[in-house]
Amino acid sequence: MKNNAISEATIKRLPIYLRYLNRLKISSVEKVSSREIGENLNFNPSQVRKDLSFFGDFGKRGYGYDVVILVRRIEEILNLDHHIPVCLVGAGKLGQALSNYNHYLEEHMKIEAIFDQNPKKIGEMIDDLTIQPDDEIIETIHNKKIKVGIICVPEDNAQHVTNLLVKAGIKAILNFAPIIVKTPEDVKVNYADFTSELHTLAYFLDKP
Amino acid sequence: MKNNAISEATIKRLPIYLRYLNRLKISSVEKVSSREIGENLNFNPSQVRKDLSFFGDFGKRGYGYDVVILVRRIEEILNLDHHIPVCLVGAGKLGQALSNYNHYLEEHMKIEAIFDQNPKKIGEMIDDLTIQPDDEIIETIHNKKIKVGIICVPEDNAQHVTNLLVKAGIKAILNFAPIIVKTPEDVKVNYADFTSELHTLAYFLDKP
Repeated sequence: MKNNAISEATIKRLPIYLRYLNRLKISSVEKVSSREIGENLNFNPSQVRKDLSFFGDFGKRGYGYDVVILVRRIEEILNLDHHIPVCLVGAGKLGQALSNYNHYLEEHMKIEAIFDQNPKKIGEMIDDLTIQPDDEIIETIHNKKIKVGIICVPEDNAQHVTNLLVKAGIKAILNFAPIIVKTPEDVKVNYADFTSELHTLAYFLDKP
Repeated sequence: MKNNAISEATIKRLPIYLRYLNRLKISSVEKVSSREIGENLNFNPSQVRKDLSFFGDFGKRGYGYDVVILVRRIEEILNLDHHIPVCLVGAGKLGQALSNYNHYLEEHMKIEAIFDQNPKKIGEMIDDLTIQPDDEIIETIHNKKIKVGIICVPEDNAQHVTNLLVKAGIKAILNFAPIIVKTPEDVKVNYADFTSELHTLAYFLDKP
């Protein structure tokens, strides 16, 4: 894992900038100001300027940012200037729903393998992928040069699957199982924790 | 929305503490130390002590925290000491997968209504819920006293659905659509942004 010079909060905003900027690019918009970016993404414009200043001086005062250059620069920083193959473990309802998200990942990433331990599911097709058994995880990751793993299994199987992914050399995991998994220090795990997100929201409600 | 005295980072960790502590409670564990909490959740023990110190002095040095009291206190802070009804808009694959998560929400929250605009889906059952048309959103939210809305619709419909939820008085939204929605300042929106999470992970990979 690289030395993290940019703050994690900034890194988390970069894909959001990237998605917005890619839409501008598709619409042939050439320039955009930090004010416009901020208004469209509900970020403070000074926050936007600060985030983007980490990557050199693209923006000329009063002229805005060049959309194509900014897209390319953010892609480079996020390692999205080359294609990243992804695998998904757990072909339950959530896993199947997520496997349909490939078009949102755009050209940057693609789910290229899907695994499940349920013999009834193995061999089924989801789009153009065949569900493979868990014991093919390591070999498939090697063969397809998969770099990122998504975990969609029940919590009591999540650590086992994490161990398999780590053994296969995966350094980046997105975990949907509602449990903290243990990994070596050089493996980054992000959590997509639906229930925690909902419980967090409750804090912002008025007391009844 | 209440004045936010506790940092948002701390608030986001509280549900994770709560889930872990509830498991200890079920296993009849009475005391837990910040070191144990830290080790199990991959948090720094001093971070744990700092987070929990916001809520008064439960922990006696060397004795650890009383699990039952800590659970009750975190539930109070998160507004989870009373039941919160939730609705879900969008009964596509992702929405249907999430509607099966009620058991993870435990007694604190429950998805009590589900909506879709597709006439083919209306009237279908998901568990014990009947999919209702979008034009019943406002009335149902009023009748069932729903406080939180989950948005699982395609991005081009997300702002429209947000507007309906806001009109119905919802102050807390979890948005799964990959788009930033506009709301009045007193409405809190959290994002469950699967593709951004994956793109963020790419940053932590080594360059090829």
